[in-house]
This record gives sequence, C-alpha cells and structure tokens, in this order.
Amino acid sequence: MKSRDDGATAGPQLGRRQFLGAATIGAGVAATGLSGPAAAYEGPSPQVDFPADPRTFGGGPPSTNNRAEIDLFDCEVEGHLPDLDGCFYRVGPDPQYPKPAKFSGDIPFDGEGHVSMFRIKDGHVDYRTRYARTQRWKAQHAARRSLFGMYRNPMTDDPSVKGLSRGTANTQLFVHHQKLLVFKEDSPPVYMDPWTLETRDDYYTFGGKLGSQTHTAHPKIDPLTGEYVSFGYEATGLASKDVHVFTADKNGNVTWGVTVQAPYAAMMHDFAVTQKHVILMVTQMAANLPQMQAGGVHFAYDSTLPVYIGVLRRGGDGKDVRWFKGANLFCTHVMGAWCDGDRITLDMDGGEGNQFPFFPSVREPFDPVKAQGRIRRFTIDLTRKSNDTYQVETLYPEVTGVLSRQDDRFHTLPYRWGFLSAGRSWAIFDHANKTSQLVTVPDYALSEMTFVPRKHDAPEGDGYLIGIGSSMKEAGRSDLILVDVKDIAAGPVARVKMPFKVVGQVHGFWADARQLPAV
Amino acid sequence: MKSRDDGATAGPQLGRRQFLGAATIGAGVAATGLSGPAAAYEGPSPQVDFPADPRTFGGGPPSTNNRAEIDLFDCEVEGHLPDLDGCFYRVGPDPQYPKPAKFSGDIPFDGEGHVSMFRIKDGHVDYRTRYARTQRWKAQHAARRSLFGMYRNPMTDDPSVKGLSRGTANTQLFVHHQKLLVFKEDSPPVYMDPWTLETRDDYYTFGGKLGSQTHTAHPKIDPLTGEYVSFGYEATGLASKDVHVFTADKNGNVTWGVTVQAPYAAMMHDFAVTQKHVILMVTQMAANLPQMQAGGVHFAYDSTLPVYIGVLRRGGDGKDVRWFKGANLFCTHVMGAWCDGDRITLDMDGGEGNQFPFFPSVREPFDPVKAQGRIRRFTIDLTRKSNDTYQVETLYPEVTGVLSRQDDRFHTLPYRWGFLSAGRSWAIFDHANKTSQLVTVPDYALSEMTFVPRKHDAPEGDGYLIGIGSSMKEAGRSDLILVDVKDIAAGPVARVKMPFKVVGQVHGFWADARQLPAV
Repeated sequence: MKSRDDGATAGPQLGRRQFLGAATIGAGVAATGLSGPAAAYEGPSPQVDFPADPRTFGGGPPSTNNRAEIDLFDCEVEGHLPDLDGCFYRVGPDPQYPKPAKFSGDIPFDGEGHVSMFRIKDGHVDYRTRYARTQRWKAQHAARRSLFGMYRNPMTDDPSVKGLSRGTANTQLFVHHQKLLVFKEDSPPVYMDPWTLETRDDYYTFGGKLGSQTHTAHPKIDPLTGEYVSFGYEATGLASKDVHVFTADKNGNVTWGVTVQAPYAAMMHDFAVTQKHVILMVTQMAANLPQMQAGGVHFAYDSTLPVYIGVLRRGGDGKDVRWFKGANLFCTHVMGAWCDGDRITLDMDGGEGNQFPFFPSVREPFDPVKAQGRIRRFTIDLTRKSNDTYQVETLYPEVTGVLSRQDDRFHTLPYRWGFLSAGRSWAIFDHANKTSQLVTVPDYALSEMTFVPRKHDAPEGDGYLIGIGSSMKEAGRSDLILVDVKDIAAGPVARVKMPFKVVGQVHGFWADARQLPAV
Repeated sequence: MKSRDDGATAGPQLGRRQFLGAATIGAGVAATGLSGPAAAYEGPSPQVDFPADPRTFGGGPPSTNNRAEIDLFDCEVEGHLPDLDGCFYRVGPDPQYPKPAKFSGDIPFDGEGHVSMFRIKDGHVDYRTRYARTQRWKAQHAARRSLFGMYRNPMTDDPSVKGLSRGTANTQLFVHHQKLLVFKEDSPPVYMDPWTLETRDDYYTFGGKLGSQTHTAHPKIDPLTGEYVSFGYEATGLASKDVHVFTADKNGNVTWGVTVQAPYAAMMHDFAVTQKHVILMVTQMAANLPQMQAGGVHFAYDSTLPVYIGVLRRGGDGKDVRWFKGANLFCTHVMGAWCDGDRITLDMDGGEGNQFPFFPSVREPFDPVKAQGRIRRFTIDLTRKSNDTYQVETLYPEVTGVLSRQDDRFHTLPYRWGFLSAGRSWAIFDHANKTSQLVTVPDYALSEMTFVPRKHDAPEGDGYLIGIGSSMKEAGRSDLILVDVKDIAAGPVARVKMPFKVVGQVHGFWADARQLPAV
C-alpha cells in the first residue's frame, strides 16, 4: 500500500501511470472468461469496499478514489490571482463502484467521469465537482453496485443494462455553443450545465444530427470561424472500421458529415485539423474482438501493425481520404497542426512503442524506454498524388513527456508555443527559436496543464499555465497552480490552496466567461 | 506548521485543544482595541488567504480549514456494518472567512458551523456536509469576507450586519419533532432539513414561543415522555444574568417556561435534567463586559469566582430555584443525572482549573495539570431547606478526559453506562461495577463518540460507539469507526473509509430513522 501512496503523491495521473508501468501485461484481461451470458444481478447490493490491491480496479489505500461531489466556495488563494474571468474545467475517471471480482482486472480508465471546475473571477475562486450523470452512472447509482464489466466491452455487462450507453464521460471536456460537453470516445458527449455541473443530457447528439455512435474526446474549434470539428471512430458499432467526421457551426448546428473507412479498427484518441484538412491517426492499439469475447478489455497493442495517418479535405465528400504510412510511432495527443497549401505539418507527442501498459500486448512485453514520449513533427505532402508516406522529425529530443497542449486559439494555424507534461514539470517550447524551458515548482508534482490567455485577445502564448500540483510534502493534498508563461522564473503567480487532494484528471479545459451562458 | 499538522492528526478537536493549550493567555483579545464604531466594509472583497500562523483564527497549513460542502454517496466500508437505520450527525466550527488582522486573535470556536451526516442503512453509508445557512453565514457569503468580529462580542461587528443574528450554529445538533436543530449557545437554534441539510429556518423560535434570546447547545429529551427540556443563559441580552428554562412537547409546542437569575453571568455550557428537576451550573468563565468593550472575546476565566449549581423544579414557577456551592471544579459536560426523591446525583467531567486555555485568564496562567478532566459525581440534597452546598466525589481517578456521553435514552434516569473521550481513546464506564475500559484503535486518534443502541429498544449500553478516528499513519485522512460496546476486544466492527480528512466536530448525535421525517 505504501508504494501506491507514494505514487499517488506524484500527481493523480502520473502516479497511476507510473504504477501501471510496472504492472504485468496480463492486466486488462478478466480474471475468468465468461461462459455464456452473465446473470442479471440479484440480492441486496453488496457493501462497498474497494480492494486493497492497487493492481486491481479502484484498488489501493482509501484515498485512491475520491467519489465526493464538492462545493467549496471562495477557496484559499496564496499569491496574487490574475485578473481572469472564466472557468478551468477538469475531468477524470473516479470509480463509482468496485467491480465484481471477475472484473477486478479492469483498467483505471473505466472509472466514471468526475468533473471539477475552478470558477475564477475578481480575485476569487469557487470549486465544484460533480459526477457526469451518464446512463451508466444512473443505473449503477440506483442499484448501488457496478453493472458494467470490462473497459469498452459490452459483452461483460449485466443484462439489466442492455441498451444503455456505456459511456463514462471521463476523458476530456469542452465548452462549445454554451454547453459543457464531456467526452468518452466510445459514446456521444454528455451535456452538463457549465455553471452548476448539472447533467442536462446524458446522450447529446447535436439535436439528433450526430452521424456516429461514438465521439472523440478531442474535438477542435476553428479559431477563425468558431466552427466545431470532430469525429468518432468505430462509428457504426463495436470494432467497426468506420470513422465519422463532422462539423457544427458556432451554434452547434451540424453543417457537414462524412464517413470514411480506416485501414483497421484501432484507437484514434486525438486528431488534428488545419484550415483545409482533417487529419486522422490509426495507432497499433487495435480493437480486439476475440479478447472481448474472452471477457477482456477492448484493445490490445500489436507492434507489427502499421501506423496510418489519414487526411481528408474539410467539407468534402470523404472520397479524397488518403492514408499515409511511415515510422511506426505511438502518438496520442496533438500539440498543433497547420497547412501551407497542401503541405501539412502535424506535431504530436509519442513514443517508439506502446505508451499504455495497462492494455494487453499481443507481442513483446511493455518497454518503458520505448514508451517515452517526445515531440514528433510529421510532415505530409499532398501535392504528389502517388505519395503514401509521411515524414517525421523528433523535436527537442532532450525533453520527454506526454499530454501535449498549445494555446487553443491557434488550432489549425501556424503556431509558436507548445506545452508538455514532462515528469513532474511543465515544458514550454518556443518553436520560433527552437528552445525549451521547464517549469518546476519545488515540492510539487504537476499534472497536465492548460494554457489561459492573459486577455481574450492577447498574443499567442501570452498568458498563464494552469493545472494541479500535488504536494510531495503534505501527503493527501493538492493545489491549483498558475504560472505566468512570460515570467516562469518568478515561480507561480498564485496557488489555490485546497484542503485535500482534489479529484484526478485526464484532461482540463479553460473557458473564458465570454464562452459561457449569461448567469 | 509541522507541529500544528501533527496536532491535527490527533483528532480534529483534540489536536486544536492540545495546540491551544500551549498558547499564551493573551489569546482571545483583539490585537488592537477599537476606537469608536468600526467602519462599514468597502472596496472589493479581499482575496481569501488564511494566515499561516496556527495561533491565529483559521491559521495553519491549508488543511486546517475544510470549508467544502460534500456529497459522497455509498462510502467505502471495511468490516461488517451493523444493521442500523439512522443518521450520525456532527457539527463543528469551520471558518468561512479569515478575519481582518485586528481580529486574528479570535478563538477557533468562532468558526461557522459546518454540519456533516453519515446516513447508515442496509449496509450502506452516504455522507453529506453543509454549512448551516445562518444569518451570519449568508451575509458573509454575499460579501465574500468576514463581517463579524470577536467571539460573542457584537461590539466588534461591521455596521452592515447590525441586527443580524451572530449565531454560528457550530456546537451541537439534535433531532426533535422531526427537525435537525443546530445550536450555538448565544442564539436560537438553526433548523435544517434532517435529510438534505438544507437550512429551513436560520432563527428557529419554536413558533415564536422561545422566551429567550439564546438557547443552549445541550438540550435534553425526557425518554419517558419525549419532552424537550432546554434553557438559554444571558437570556435577555449581552452579559445578562437571566436564565430562561423551558420545555416543549414531543411535537415542539412550548409547554412551560420560566426565567431565573444566575448569581453572575457566566458560561453555562451544559445542564442536566432529572425526572423532577432542572440543574444549572455557573462556571468561573464569566462574561466580561470591559474585555468586550476593549475589543476582546466574551469570556474571561476568574478562578476566584465561586462555582454554583442551581436547582429548580420542572414545571414550577422558578421561585424555588436554589443555588449550591462546593468544590470549585470547572465542569463542562454532563454524563448523566437522576433523582431519588429530592436527592440528586449529577455526573460531569471536569478539572480543578480552567479547561479552555483559549479564553483569557484574569488571574493565574493556564495550568494544563489542573485542566485535566475526571468524572465528578455531584450530590445535592434538597430535603434540608438550609443546605446550600453540594458534595462531590471523583470517580475513576485513573481516567482523564473530556466530552462525557451516555446512552441518551437514559437522560433523567438512573443509569449504568458512561463514555468519555480519553486522549486518543474512548473510555467506557460501568457504574454498576465501578470499572472502566479503554477502546483504542491502533494508529487512530479517536474524536468524541456517540452511543448508538443496537436496536431502538435494546437494553441500556447495548450497542455501538460511533465516532471519527484520524489516521496517524495516513496524514490527512480520517474514518468513521464503529465499536461494539459488548465486544470491544474484537476491535472496530466496521470502518467507513473516507478519502480525505472529514470536517471537524465539537459534538455528534445519533438519530434513529424513527425520529426522522418520512422520506
């Protein structure tokens, strides 16, 4: 238990990953295969006790899971809070219930989505957290037990929940057309009220116009038009190769949609958008039906599969989609992308091998060295019709990390500033000068950061990095940290001191008050 | 900061007391006296930052104050939860805002009342906390700053809050006539919904029939009739000697009320009731108007003042009140009381000297040895009209502690089982056999406990002790602990594992579901 506790101190997400990095590749497979359909639950709901073993779903010391829905009005603030008016939203998995023993090998990313919000205005900060009231959450809440089996494997569910959305809304969130949309890439968004965090729609389909059964956790906004650009993979059903790409205008009206076929069904966690193109990426983390049929999780990593980058024109009919191959890098998150005519540049972080050790590997065991992420700059030349390869260059090879970010106002455009979670630090990249800086806060392990512009019309990169720091001295506590990108040497400009460890996050998002509904 | 942190680990209340025991006797006096009326607040509300100095109001490391209103559905439970159906309520001070520097010497017990509830049923536990929405809380919430000055000193308030109740509802709570009543002894109760913890009435006066400006934090219920017996001291205004004693029937209708005069105005924190009598106690913690006029807190300890015990008949006209003197013990809480005809027995815990070091002492400095509490058995013989002295005997001299409790179903009646917070342990006393036992939980510091009957009609003392234990190994965490009084050797029967340190408490109360409104 001690080692897990230490891991957790190193940041909600990082700690879990570090721990899981040491797990065997058998993780993600149910302890026993299923023989025939599972029985519907019966009898009184069991006492709630998560396992002590940190290798199991929700397991570890009692502080492993948070599960508490909180309102903390007027948080304590040290330093000088910048003159901001907006909300910092975060979401991550937070297991609602322990799994039955046969599913205890499920992965942490199958926890139910717990949304948190720091409302910042006039030098004051209010904190609020709520679980997304997904169809799944509501069914389990009523039954006081887990009813959904393994990660993205509907074959393992209790018969009582057949037909309900399996979505956990635990990965990323986004404000568009004045709605807080919360994402899990196997299902449509969940729409929550951006102020109250009340769930308004547990299955949001853009007024019935969503042409996919799924929706990415990483939609993009075109900063020039406010247009929402998004996609869903496995769009027509479990392990399907269909990828649906669509746009909605700034009011959320669907304006375009096409379905294309991926070379094979695999995890497509993020994507990129230029002013002209949509860029898809097929990783070697493939949907694995036999594994699901045996009661395991959705994906398995196969290093022998080729990585593909797909490109199609925005607004086209999809028939122009082209798939490019090249160095087999395992990339997860997009930093930025743009085009110069039909020459595309795409920056992602990625490793030479699998970065998700909690999924089974069908070939070699997990290799933590190959998993190390670096900034990979892909270039794709669409002008030569016969070209079917992408080029890739590693930028800043001295910096390793995950969870790329940029100043979100420059998605689709040439950009200068990029950000990365680098161990317990935040890395800042200046692509103009090809330099990198590290933001460290003594005695804190920093989680994923989000960039916040100093003003809504500030120049690119002029603003703050905001994110959670876990105190390494005060076990069980974490703070919100704000750093001025233009003066990182000064240390954090403000620290929002929380009385406890806040709920963990996968991703965060900053929404300026201008994007939010009038109060 | 380290020493405060360690203190906090030793139980929310005990830690604070232990720390404060080392404070100088200057505490409780404003840093600067007031010259003329205070100015109304103006300008933007200040950034919220509690001081780092743990000797100041709300000061210490960020985990010092909790302030988070929480819903945690289906807490983790280890062991086997008994078959109980009811709610364990708790309340304690939790500073809503830091005080301006001139009031930073205010005492911890001036924090706003934060109520928490563990709802136990069918082997499941739901946790909820809410601040009592007192008039004070609402005014400060709207202004985003502290507006009330020193502890029970209205002369130090911001002019904008003149006329509002100063009550913090931070001391004890009680369910009667299906209402959760939350108490601060300087003001009427606050009525909260027992299920939602929503504040229904910020100034509850029993339908306008409360004949006092104040109300004790320790009313009693007559177990034979369900009658509510209560009182208020300083009943007619600041530092008044008037004590109002009253009863209400089981539906909350006021049935009797008289006002008597105390020998002097002083803290009367608890009181006792027999089947025939009401028993009042005047301590040496006297209301001190000059100190208030100088900007200090309400009370000062004066060891030269005599302690009085007052006795009057229930249902009489109050003219029969008699005041008894004897050994000058400083007693705070009643364990039990009963009468045999007109011979009264009263058990309290108390020390030979001041137990509240955070209040100024007008004579000698605080003496931690004299502060040690032991069980004091007072006997008062009313049969001799000329008698004006009480007798007192120390029971179980080997056990020191505070916060006496009993099986509440035996208030007013001869009783056998008593309970005491003894350091980090719980002491159980069997008055029939004159024996004591200590309940200790390895690696936990136990806060005040409450007795929960095994069934509503179980024999006296047949049930569980329930209370918060602070983990001494996992800094920043605390659990709800349940121990079977009939088998303490087996250790806790259940532990409700919380993901964080729960909000502190002064007192707790168990309400059986039979006492609560139908859902």
